[in-house]
Amino acid sequence: MLDKVIQKKTKKADVEESLNEMQARLIDLANAAKAAKIPVVITIDGWAAAGKGSQIAKLIKYMDPRFYNVEPIRRPNDAELRKPWMHRYWQRLPKQGDFLILDGSWYSDTVKSRMGGVIDKSGYEQRVRDINTLERQLHDDGYLIIKLFLHITQEEQRKRLKKLDENKFTSWRVDAHDFENNKRYDKIFRNFDRILEATNTASAPWNIIPANDGVTAQFEIMHIVTEAIKGACEAKEQGTEFRLTPSFPLTDYKPEKFTLVRTKKLSKIDMDKSLTEEEYRAKLKKYQKRLFELQNLCYRRKIPVIVAYEGWDAGGKGGNIKRLASAMDPRGYEVKPIAAPEPSELARHYLWRFWTRLENDGHFTIFDRTWYGRVMVEPIEGFTPKERADMAYNEINEFEKQLSDWGAVIFKFWINIDKDEQYRRFKERENTPSKQWKITDEDWRNREKWDEYEKAVDRMIKLTSTETAPWTVIEGNDKKYARIKALKTICDRLEKHLK
Amino acid sequence: MLDKVIQKKTKKADVEESLNEMQARLIDLANAAKAAKIPVVITIDGWAAAGKGSQIAKLIKYMDPRFYNVEPIRRPNDAELRKPWMHRYWQRLPKQGDFLILDGSWYSDTVKSRMGGVIDKSGYEQRVRDINTLERQLHDDGYLIIKLFLHITQEEQRKRLKKLDENKFTSWRVDAHDFENNKRYDKIFRNFDRILEATNTASAPWNIIPANDGVTAQFEIMHIVTEAIKGACEAKEQGTEFRLTPSFPLTDYKPEKFTLVRTKKLSKIDMDKSLTEEEYRAKLKKYQKRLFELQNLCYRRKIPVIVAYEGWDAGGKGGNIKRLASAMDPRGYEVKPIAAPEPSELARHYLWRFWTRLENDGHFTIFDRTWYGRVMVEPIEGFTPKERADMAYNEINEFEKQLSDWGAVIFKFWINIDKDEQYRRFKERENTPSKQWKITDEDWRNREKWDEYEKAVDRMIKLTSTETAPWTVIEGNDKKYARIKALKTICDRLEKHLK
Repeated sequence: MLDKVIQKKTKKADVEESLNEMQARLIDLANAAKAAKIPVVITIDGWAAAGKGSQIAKLIKYMDPRFYNVEPIRRPNDAELRKPWMHRYWQRLPKQGDFLILDGSWYSDTVKSRMGGVIDKSGYEQRVRDINTLERQLHDDGYLIIKLFLHITQEEQRKRLKKLDENKFTSWRVDAHDFENNKRYDKIFRNFDRILEATNTASAPWNIIPANDGVTAQFEIMHIVTEAIKGACEAKEQGTEFRLTPSFPLTDYKPEKFTLVRTKKLSKIDMDKSLTEEEYRAKLKKYQKRLFELQNLCYRRKIPVIVAYEGWDAGGKGGNIKRLASAMDPRGYEVKPIAAPEPSELARHYLWRFWTRLENDGHFTIFDRTWYGRVMVEPIEGFTPKERADMAYNEINEFEKQLSDWGAVIFKFWINIDKDEQYRRFKERENTPSKQWKITDEDWRNREKWDEYEKAVDRMIKLTSTETAPWTVIEGNDKKYARIKALKTICDRLEKHLK
Repeated sequence: MLDKVIQKKTKKADVEESLNEMQARLIDLANAAKAAKIPVVITIDGWAAAGKGSQIAKLIKYMDPRFYNVEPIRRPNDAELRKPWMHRYWQRLPKQGDFLILDGSWYSDTVKSRMGGVIDKSGYEQRVRDINTLERQLHDDGYLIIKLFLHITQEEQRKRLKKLDENKFTSWRVDAHDFENNKRYDKIFRNFDRILEATNTASAPWNIIPANDGVTAQFEIMHIVTEAIKGACEAKEQGTEFRLTPSFPLTDYKPEKFTLVRTKKLSKIDMDKSLTEEEYRAKLKKYQKRLFELQNLCYRRKIPVIVAYEGWDAGGKGGNIKRLASAMDPRGYEVKPIAAPEPSELARHYLWRFWTRLENDGHFTIFDRTWYGRVMVEPIEGFTPKERADMAYNEINEFEKQLSDWGAVIFKFWINIDKDEQYRRFKERENTPSKQWKITDEDWRNREKWDEYEKAVDRMIKLTSTETAPWTVIEGNDKKYARIKALKTICDRLEKHLK
C-alpha cells in the first residue's frame, strides 16, 4: 500500500480557507458525536519524525479538551508487561462521545516488537489477528475507528532527524538509533506495509497520509476526520451501520471460527451426585493442599489463571469460591464480584469492565459472575437487544482466546441445581435470619423465568465451550460434591498444564 | 515500643476453642461491617519471616473472599514511581463494607526507603506526617484501620530464614540480603521502633504482636481484629465515633496547620478588567508560546502540574481550559471533567476519585471542577452534612501539600463573573440553538442560591489559600481577559519554579 502513496506539496494559501472551514466544522462535529454518544478512536501511526505530534496538535487545536484524550504509546512499562498486550489499549478505551487519540498505537507496538525480536513470526500473526478482532469488536459496538498512517520518504526522514538533532530544544528527542533506523528504511517500509495490508478491514480501513509536506498532511487528515465523524453521526441518526470508504482493496479478514467441544444440555446432567461428609473432608484436604502447591508454581512461572463462576441463584457460588480461596495464598488471587454496571461502564464496550479487572500474570482472577451476563441476563431482561447479544458468543470466544494466548489457564464453571433444590434454598434463606439478606424479590422474579434462562444457558455452553476455555458444568445439588468438583477440575488441568 | 513486647508460647489445645469461636464470629462480624458499610483496612507489617503471609491466610480463611482483597506491598514499580508515593495506597482503598488487607504497607515501604537511602531525613519526616494524615483522614471518614506489627527476635528470625532456605519449595523466597539484614537486626529494630512510636495515633493506634510463637500471634490477631470490628459496628449503630483502645502511650500528633495567604472577598474584586481584541491576540500568542516551552521543560524535568478550575456556571471555564490546552503538546496533559460521583466513588473517601485521576509526573492534570465540590455544592445541596464538609478545608490543604511535596506546581482558578453577566450568558445560551445543551433547569436553580454560594466560595478561598497552593481569582466578565490571566499566571509561576 505504501508504494501507492504520492507525496504532494500544498501551498498554505490555497487551502487556508478550507482548513479554517473544516476546523470550525470539527468543533460542531465533535459536539454532534457527543450528542449521538459515538466514541471515537483515532490511531496516528507512521514513521519516526513524520510529524505525528504536530499533526495531532493541529487536529485537536479547536476541539474541547474535556472530551478528548491524547495518549502516547511507548514501550510497555513493567506493570503493562504483566497483562495481555491488548490490556493497555482496552484500559484507555474512551467512553461514548469522547475521543481517544493514540500517538503510536498497536501498530507501531507490533512492528517494533517483531523487528526487535520480542515476538516471533507466530506471535506476530497472533497480534495481527488480535488487532483485527479489536477493531471489529469496537466497530460492531458503535465505535468509530479512524486509522491514519503518516508516510514520509527516507530522504525526508533523514533531513528531519538532522534538523531535530541540531536544535538544542529538540535534540533530546533524537538518538543514534533513529539514524540507524533511517538507514534501514527499506526494511521498516516492508514491515509497515505488511501490517497495513493485513489490517485494512471493512471495520477500520487505512488512511495513508503523504506527510513529506505538513500542509498536505494536515489538509488530508482534517478532511478524513471530519468526513468520518459526519458519516458516523448521520448513520447513527438513521439507525444504519456506518462503514468508512476504503482507499485500498480490503484485506481478506474473517473473524476466527472456534472449534467447539461437545457439551450436554442441562436437562441431561445427572443431578444425583453427592459425597458423604467423610469423603468430602478427605478430598477437600487433599485438593486444597494440591491447589496451594499449584498456585505457588503458577506464581513462580507467571502463569495467569482465570476462574469464571456462573450458576443459578442460590447455586452455592459463594461457598464454592470460598473453598478455592481458602486453599490459596491470599496475596496471589483476587475475587471480583460482578454487579450491575456503573455509568462509566455502560458508556463503554461491555468487555471493558472485564479487561480492566484482570490481575497480573502469576495471579488468579476469580470472577463471581462474568461477561456471560451479556448472553443471559442482558437479553432476557431487555438490557441488550437479542441480535446484539447474539454477537457476543464469538466476541467472548475471541476474548478468552486472547487470555489464553497471554498464557492464562481458563476455568468456566456453571453451578447447576434443579428447580426444586433452588426452591428449598430460597425458603431456607427466608427462614434463617442471618441469611435473609441473600434473598430478594428479584430472585423470585428470576425464578419465574427459569425455562428461558435454561435455554440461554444451554446455548451459551454450546457456543462458548472452546478447546482453550471449555465450560465445566458442576452438579450442585450437593454442595460438597460441587466444591470438590471445582477444586479437582482446577488441580487436574493446572497439573497437566504445568508439565 | 518494641522493647515492651514479651514473647509467649501458647499451646494450641489451650486456645483452640476460643480460636474456633472467634473465627466463626469473624464471619458474622464481616457481614455486620458490610451491612453497616464500614470499610476496613488492616495493615500487617513486621520483620521478614515473621509469618505475615501465613497469619493473613489464617485470618481470612473463613471470610467471604468476595469482600476482601489482600495486597502485597513490594518495591514500587515504574508506573507507581511516577505518582505521589501515597498514590498506590489510595488506589487500593476498599469501598464501604469491604476489607483491604495489606501485607507490608506504608510502614515497611518508608523504613526500607529510609534505610536504603531512597529518602533523606526530611523525606522520612514528611512520610511519617503523610502516614498520620492518611490514617486520620480515613478514620474521620469512617474507615476502621487496624495496624498489626509482627515482632520476632533476632534469633527466631535467623532460625526461620535458615529453615526457609533449606526447603526446596521455599528457598526462592530467601536471599543473601535477608541474612545480612538479620545481622543488622538492632539497626532495623531502632528504625521500626521509631516509626511505630511516631505513628501511634488515636485514629489508628498500634498493635504489636509477639510472633515468635505462631499460635500466640494468631490468637492475638484474631482477638484484636474481632474486637475492633465489633466495636466499630456498635459505634456506628449508636452513631458515635469509634476509637480503638491504644496499647501504648499515644504519640503527640496534631494535624498540620497551614499558613494561609491573604485573600480578598469576591465582592471586593474589580470586575471591570478587560482586554481589546488586539491586546488579546498579541498576549495570547505570547503566553501560549511560553507555555509550550515551559510544558516541554516540565516534561523533561518530570515536574507534575495540577490546574484546578472552579467558577460560576457559565463563567467560561471551558473556553479558558481550551486556550490552555491548545497551547500545549497534547501528549503531555489531560483534562478531567468532574461530574457527579458514581456509586463506586461514593462508596469511598471523597478524595479517592481525585487521587486516582492524577497523571504521571511531567504531565499536566487539568481538573474541570474539583475536590472543592466538597465545600460548595455538597453541603449546599445537602449531599454532605455541613460539619463533615467543614473538615474538608484542612483535608484539602493536606492533599494539596502532598501533591506539592511530590513536586507538583498547583494552580487553582476561581473564574468569577457577576450576577448580571451570568444572566446575560444564560439567556444567550437559551437563545442560541447550538448552545442550548449547555443550559439546564439546574443552572437556574443554582443561580437562585447565588448568595449562599458566594459565601461558601469566600470561605473556601480564605481557608485553602496556602503558600504552595494559592487561589487565583480570575476576573471573568471579559473572557479574553480571563484567558490571558490564567495563561499568564501559569507561565509566570512555572518560570519562577523552574529557575
